[in-house]
Amino acid sequence: MPLPHQDVIVIGHGSGGRMTQDLIERIFKKYLFNPILSEGNDFARIPASSGSLIVSTDSHIITPLFFPGGDIGKLSVSGTVNDVAVSGAKPLYLTAGFIIEEGFSINELEKIVISMAETARSAGVQLVSGDTKVAEKGKVDKLFINTTGFGWLPEEIRIGGQYARPGDAVIVSGTLGDHGIAVLAARGELGFETDIESDVAPLNGLISRLLENVPDVHVLRDPTRGGLATTLNEIAAQSNVCITLEETDIPIRPEVKAACDMFGFDPLYLANEGKIIIILPEKHAAKALEILRATPIGELSTRIGFVSDAPQKRVLLKTPIGGTRILDVLAGEMLPRIC
Amino acid sequence: MPLPHQDVIVIGHGSGGRMTQDLIERIFKKYLFNPILSEGNDFARIPASSGSLIVSTDSHIITPLFFPGGDIGKLSVSGTVNDVAVSGAKPLYLTAGFIIEEGFSINELEKIVISMAETARSAGVQLVSGDTKVAEKGKVDKLFINTTGFGWLPEEIRIGGQYARPGDAVIVSGTLGDHGIAVLAARGELGFETDIESDVAPLNGLISRLLENVPDVHVLRDPTRGGLATTLNEIAAQSNVCITLEETDIPIRPEVKAACDMFGFDPLYLANEGKIIIILPEKHAAKALEILRATPIGELSTRIGFVSDAPQKRVLLKTPIGGTRILDVLAGEMLPRIC
Repeated sequence: MPLPHQDVIVIGHGSGGRMTQDLIERIFKKYLFNPILSEGNDFARIPASSGSLIVSTDSHIITPLFFPGGDIGKLSVSGTVNDVAVSGAKPLYLTAGFIIEEGFSINELEKIVISMAETARSAGVQLVSGDTKVAEKGKVDKLFINTTGFGWLPEEIRIGGQYARPGDAVIVSGTLGDHGIAVLAARGELGFETDIESDVAPLNGLISRLLENVPDVHVLRDPTRGGLATTLNEIAAQSNVCITLEETDIPIRPEVKAACDMFGFDPLYLANEGKIIIILPEKHAAKALEILRATPIGELSTRIGFVSDAPQKRVLLKTPIGGTRILDVLAGEMLPRIC
Repeated sequence: MPLPHQDVIVIGHGSGGRMTQDLIERIFKKYLFNPILSEGNDFARIPASSGSLIVSTDSHIITPLFFPGGDIGKLSVSGTVNDVAVSGAKPLYLTAGFIIEEGFSINELEKIVISMAETARSAGVQLVSGDTKVAEKGKVDKLFINTTGFGWLPEEIRIGGQYARPGDAVIVSGTLGDHGIAVLAARGELGFETDIESDVAPLNGLISRLLENVPDVHVLRDPTRGGLATTLNEIAAQSNVCITLEETDIPIRPEVKAACDMFGFDPLYLANEGKIIIILPEKHAAKALEILRATPIGELSTRIGFVSDAPQKRVLLKTPIGGTRILDVLAGEMLPRIC
């Protein structure tokens, strides 16, 4: 007996019974089908490989769900793919946990799942295990998505925040702050029209091209929540080094700068969802820039600073007028629900 | 400069900046510390093993957060450990994604994290990657926790819902419906006092003892959302078999039965969080019961039915008066937010 066609999510879609099964068939399996997912057990079985298993998890609670350049579906796949890829591993698999508000539009859910499927395809990852929960109206804000990603890391690769060394160059793969300002614009809070789009994208293709062509990459990290400044502080602390940035070299779109000036935001603390920081020996920096700039996603890659031994655990910013100031980690919160 | 001591979660705890770091140090690392988690990258590096990698994900949105016999912390670890363990794999690692409501008590969060740590220790699993998000007051109901679990499955083990065969016996490891009724009681909806406690517990110890002592286990599955009836229907469909239950043999506590009668619930559809269904050749059933009953968690294990070849994809219930009725999957939802 077919179930009556529903236009919105109802509590029964989270029951684990027939309505859940119907939603899985109608939306999730339709777009995210693959042989591992189709076994129908509560677990997924994946062929093991040599090397280490790399794992990363992230819950996504962004508002609004759709924004210029992306949506929560693209974000939830890209964010976790990137967290796995910055280890040097090839991301291969994802799990997804959906928490949906009663009354949420199934049409919108379908758009988001299609976006997840397209992003997963472009990143070369498969969804292998999923979960759907429904909370009563007013108990969750529309839709939250947790993704956990994994891949295999060859034994010889050692990339991480603890490996920055004095004499290294610091590169960023493009302009900063685009995601934060695009989301702010989508919330209708900018007060003016803008063409700024979120940079949200999977970066594993860019990263593997880099690693295939440039030896001895020490650190890769995506400056998401907390932005460039917070991320570099984490690296400086993990590696016991000082990182110095040249303010004039940091690529920021004029529209992003203008919006930041208006709102009192610092673009160095704004979230990015499609950028990586690369730290590697100075002698390989030119080659890395050449490789990165040859891709559409990395064409604005720039060397923005260097690593030295002291003062340890500090990030310094050299200003255009010749001064130097300490860039601390983000203290409070500029922009909640950004990822 | 130390941060001012907070008693409740504020938006800044989800910023990815200093307040997030402070919360991680003060609560999460304090109880969940291990060498893999401590590397400080956004990914975890885990030594690979032979065999297959088993993965399962689950988001937990139970209300209330604390209930007789457990809390969301114990539930979020047990639920995912059990989903990995029913593959026959040894669960070893977990990720955890927290979505917390602004204003939530840090003292309660700490209790929940302690409960997660204790449950993880008793199950022998390590938390290797975490994420914390904070949503504004009213945008999430107190606390949701997603966990994703991992373990390695030896090549020779093949256990799954697709392996039930005619001639198999069906065993359940204890009484049904305790979790559902305990949560209902904790919501104050029963209208009378009861001693019923949730059965929430990690079952990997019980499962490994079973697999070490009994050959040829075909199916293991934990009957959570949708209960025994829905879970057996899934298995009957995956394996193209018929499963027949003897109603009088199904172990249900009198208090659970009484509560079900009052509310018009069927205990066969109530969620369990510490029970497994075991399906294996009839000739091994006695040995399996002996092993299960020798453990405190499995002492009420019972053979409740058998597998035959037809009618395919059906679950039948033989009633005490000699009739037989079809047990279908859960259609709507009896009890939302149960796990």
